[in-house]
Order: sequence, then C-alpha cells, then structure tokens
Amino acid sequence: MPFVTINILEGKSKEYIQKVTDTINDAVIETMNFPEDDRYQVVHELPSHCLQYQGRDEDRIMMHLVMRAGRPDKAKQAFYKKCVADLHEAVGVKPSNVFITFTENRDIDFSFKDGIAQFVV
Amino acid sequence: MPFVTINILEGKSKEYIQKVTDTINDAVIETMNFPEDDRYQVVHELPSHCLQYQGRDEDRIMMHLVMRAGRPDKAKQAFYKKCVADLHEAVGVKPSNVFITFTENRDIDFSFKDGIAQFVV
Amino acid sequence: MPFVTINILEGKSKEYIQKVTDTINDAVIETMNFPEDDRYQVVHELPSHCLQYQGRDEDRIMMHLVMRAGRPDKAKQAFYKKCVADLHEAVGVKPSNVFITFTENRDIDFSFKDGIAQFVV
Repeated sequence: MPFVTINILEGKSKEYIQKVTDTINDAVIETMNFPEDDRYQVVHELPSHCLQYQGRDEDRIMMHLVMRAGRPDKAKQAFYKKCVADLHEAVGVKPSNVFITFTENRDIDFSFKDGIAQFVV
Repeated sequence: MPFVTINILEGKSKEYIQKVTDTINDAVIETMNFPEDDRYQVVHELPSHCLQYQGRDEDRIMMHLVMRAGRPDKAKQAFYKKCVADLHEAVGVKPSNVFITFTENRDIDFSFKDGIAQFVV
Repeated sequence: MPFVTINILEGKSKEYIQKVTDTINDAVIETMNFPEDDRYQVVHELPSHCLQYQGRDEDRIMMHLVMRAGRPDKAKQAFYKKCVADLHEAVGVKPSNVFITFTENRDIDFSFKDGIAQFVV
C-alpha cells in the first residue's frame, strides 16, 4: 500500500532508478507484510542543490512513505534496516546517506483505483 | 484548502495539465465543501519509470492531498468517485489508473499566506 | 528534523534557490528549536501552470513540512511569520505568495541515516 516518494540526484541511468525502486519495493513488501503487487512509487530526479541533506555532497536518497496506520514499530525498524542495507548493495549509496520518513493515515484515505476507497467498502 | 500534489507522465501539453488540475479542483470544491478559490496544487511531470503504479504502462495519475481533519468519510468517497470519473471524461485516463491518498492535519498546520495560521487567528 | 518539500517556479538561479533553502532552514532552526545541522530539504522547480496557487502569477513558494508531533502552536506561528518575512527580504517573494502546511508523525517515523530509527533507539 504505501505511497512512496523517492528523491534522488539527477543524472542517473534508468537502470539505477529501476534498481532503487525495486529495492525499496522489495523491502516494503518483505518487512511490512504487503501483497506482492502493492507498488505505488514516484521518483524525483533533482540537482544537488535541490536535495539538501545536512551538507552531504555524495550520492544520497531521501524518501517519504504515506501508509495506513497499524504497522508495529518493529516492522518499520526492519524496513529501515533492510532498505538501507539493500540500497547500498544494489546501487552503492552509503547507509549514512539514506533518509526515510513515514506519515500515516486511515482506511478511508486510500483509493487505489476506480474511485473507490477499497479499505472501507 | 487541500494541498494537492499531482503526479503525471511527462510529455503532456499545457492544456492536458490544465484540464487535469481544473478537474481535480472542481471535484475537491464540489464534494468536500471548500470555497471557490481554495486552489493549492503542484504538478510533477515524470518519465514512465519514475511513476510506478503496479506495473501500469498506460496513462496514469497518482495524487496526494494534505487536508485538515474533519471531512466525513462520505465526502472523501464522493471525491474519489467524482474525481476519477471526471478525469476520465476530461483527459481520457482510465478510472483504473488513478491513485489517490489523503493525509490529514490540524487547524494550526496551514498558513495560506502572509505568515499567519488563518484557522487559529 | 523536519523534512521540507519546497515548490518554486522554474528558471531561478542556483543562488536564488540557495537563498530560499537557507532562509527556510534558518527559520526552522530558530523558531522550532532544532539542532544547527538538522537540514532535510527537497526543492522542486516547476513551470507556472504546475504551481497553482489560487490564480497567482507572480513569484510564489508552496512548501510542506513533515515533522514529529510536539511543537507548540506558538512555535509554528513563529515559523510562519519569520519564514515569510525572511523570504521576502532574501528573494523578494511577497508575503502573500507563500503557502505553508505541516503534517506530523511520531518518534518511530524518522530514520535520518544508517537504517536506524534514531528517536526510539
């Protein structure tokens, strides 16, 4: 379910971006118990001065997930750990250069398609 | 009031984008009881691999609304229904290819202009 | 801490953008009591028809901050006031043309680096 907004540096290949989105999606599904095809991701490619992360100038990723409330803290912690480790392995970004934040909402707040609030029907 | 972030495929005309934003804005105002000029919208134009929506490769729209808590579920459901139907009519995007999510906040969390929290003054 | 997404008109210089991000960051740190290096900002540069703010066509800025709950209303109000006044002084954008909204989350919802939820360790 989560709606994931991913901010990266511009100038990356399509393959780099695909690895990033696949890796994040795999981590979401494995650690937070979502269905296989629950993929909703937006990627923004930004020049360095538009991706300000405490002065870092190396490769970096900043992401924001919007998710229905209810996942336990342990699941989020498992996601942080896996996501960052797997991004390092997939595209070489340092674990110290990945920022993640969540905001939560409720059943009524998702319409995945067809103009219906699937969780409350 | 809602602050609406709209993610679409790149390569669309200005007219397409205007129709999308007008349609979403009309649906917001009509179904959730906002004033006529309550329009706060940002549109991101993205390449296909940066707009990942469960593998869809056709035209698609993914949006996120930030809104003050208090609208009833029925109003959100009416918005989902009208927004998706009207986008289909306006620009041809399939109802199955429109994703919508809300996050809510409080009175203090909006400053519409002039550095003032208008809802708490 | 806050994760700040800043939407501006495209075509601005790197210096303009740097002034905008510095100004917002200084206002965050001073009014809401964050550490000096707590800077997490993303800037999107958008054509005019993709930055819809109640029909305004002059220079304008629309921003969204994701922040851990707990700051008092007075701190947010001080931020609105200072941010808008300082942006006017720094880059000339009118106070009437700055939109700000917050959404809040919890301790578990931030991983600033290294795949760890720093607030709950």
